[in-house]
Amino acid sequence: MRVGIVGLGAMGMGAAQSCVRAGLETVGCDLSADARATFEAAGGTAVSAVTEMGHLDAVLILVVNATQTEAVLFGENGLAEKLSKGAVVLAGATTAPEYPPTVAARLEALGLQFIDAPVSGGAAKAMAGSMTIMAAGSGAAFQKGAALLDAIAEKVYKIGDTPGQGATVKMINQLLAGVHIAAMAEAFALASRAGADLETVYEVISNSAGGSWMFQNRGQSIVDGDYTPKSAVDIFVKDLGIVLDAGRSMTFPLPLSAAAHQQFLAASAGGLGRENDSAVVKVFQKLTGIDLPTTEKPE
Amino acid sequence: MRVGIVGLGAMGMGAAQSCVRAGLETVGCDLSADARATFEAAGGTAVSAVTEMGHLDAVLILVVNATQTEAVLFGENGLAEKLSKGAVVLAGATTAPEYPPTVAARLEALGLQFIDAPVSGGAAKAMAGSMTIMAAGSGAAFQKGAALLDAIAEKVYKIGDTPGQGATVKMINQLLAGVHIAAMAEAFALASRAGADLETVYEVISNSAGGSWMFQNRGQSIVDGDYTPKSAVDIFVKDLGIVLDAGRSMTFPLPLSAAAHQQFLAASAGGLGRENDSAVVKVFQKLTGIDLPTTEKPE
Repeated sequence: MRVGIVGLGAMGMGAAQSCVRAGLETVGCDLSADARATFEAAGGTAVSAVTEMGHLDAVLILVVNATQTEAVLFGENGLAEKLSKGAVVLAGATTAPEYPPTVAARLEALGLQFIDAPVSGGAAKAMAGSMTIMAAGSGAAFQKGAALLDAIAEKVYKIGDTPGQGATVKMINQLLAGVHIAAMAEAFALASRAGADLETVYEVISNSAGGSWMFQNRGQSIVDGDYTPKSAVDIFVKDLGIVLDAGRSMTFPLPLSAAAHQQFLAASAGGLGRENDSAVVKVFQKLTGIDLPTTEKPE
Repeated sequence: MRVGIVGLGAMGMGAAQSCVRAGLETVGCDLSADARATFEAAGGTAVSAVTEMGHLDAVLILVVNATQTEAVLFGENGLAEKLSKGAVVLAGATTAPEYPPTVAARLEALGLQFIDAPVSGGAAKAMAGSMTIMAAGSGAAFQKGAALLDAIAEKVYKIGDTPGQGATVKMINQLLAGVHIAAMAEAFALASRAGADLETVYEVISNSAGGSWMFQNRGQSIVDGDYTPKSAVDIFVKDLGIVLDAGRSMTFPLPLSAAAHQQFLAASAGGLGRENDSAVVKVFQKLTGIDLPTTEKPE
């Protein structure tokens, strides 16, 4: 079983190393020499172009968006025409639900299989081989991809057999994740303005009806004043953009998603696009001068 | 130790019965004869006016809002002037943070103690004696109220010693709770419009980064199509109203809270105010005709 991972970023590196640990012969592909060196040190084979990946039984494309997925598969010297018949392609990026069916049709015409397989869970879970995957594809594709999926995921939800169904559920998840981060920011900002102790707010609400996965996870970064990027503000500019594009194409109003997207856009406009997504709280700080914790030591 | 509960509604009835079970001599007060009969059947003493409650060491006022709290304590034949010196009053309603300090000052002038003690957790937790309380007051007030608090709460967060600090944290919790319910509704509505299976969406997202306490708890009602009121749409019209009033009084922008409030207002305007708060999803159904589960059996 020889598998490939295209994109050795925060998620892809974890997925690739999880494959190595699972005993799969694994080829990783990334433009970054640093990423390739890291992966080789972890026991993998690293290349800088998909044309150099060689024979693959299964390949996971874990890049940022549909444009990059398209370039990897169908661009000049793309991967699709290099793969042997019967190989399975898994696409892990968050994309519009309309995109995966177009990939499936073109791969099928080449004798390849496809799983619409958006991933969730963050870099730490990727490194532990315990991502969540919201997957859709044929039974044959799942069979061919089983060893790869087992290596990288703790939980594989088989949403259905039609590519696009995975992307739809992932989009709904991102709607909620994005709104919850923006709501958490709004809540901590108001708490600061009202003179509440933010650590107390964090502890109490983490255990109350106002809690969320994002409040628990990203709230810690606000309490610590640490905005080291794990997932960036610009990821939610993109993902809530996908949500709103879908709403527009279906003529469907999404008022909370729209308000949250504006907050992430405001953060990105303020130069915070590459900070951790929790830095959306700094929109309030820039506007109103509220006190927020920082990692800087007092003098 | 003789304790009183004013308001035998969804939360107050549970609190009052928890006091009885804890072995406290308990007097409940409510205008509803049905509520009084239910409480007497559970072993309590029930009266219809606060003037009939007799001597109390501690009393919890668990009514809907500040207006009702004010009437109970300081209205004609109010409770404050009937209580013996040294008694402690706990106010459990969600109110603006400005309100509890005004109560504390007037009770103190009468020789009474006060705990700003907004409750959380819902009717089931109230009945089990395991509410969460976000409490603020003096050490002496907590000492006097300890037996009552132990009887009704699983977790008492001592937010601080200044009344109003509890109300502030509760307000922040309600900001998040309200936004999360409205976001959940938006997510399920888009999922329905996109043709996703709502039970799958519920299961996957409950275990993913898009999850929240409210998604988990209230999402079930959407999947089941059961809008039997546990907490009503109009509660969030009120509570997000308190949040937005606070933002306005502090000149602080709250875009997500405002968008969520509009959704609850839209639901209430559509005649859904007394349905379960998850019925905010029906705003989308009224507008767009999306399919949502119902409890009606197919013919």
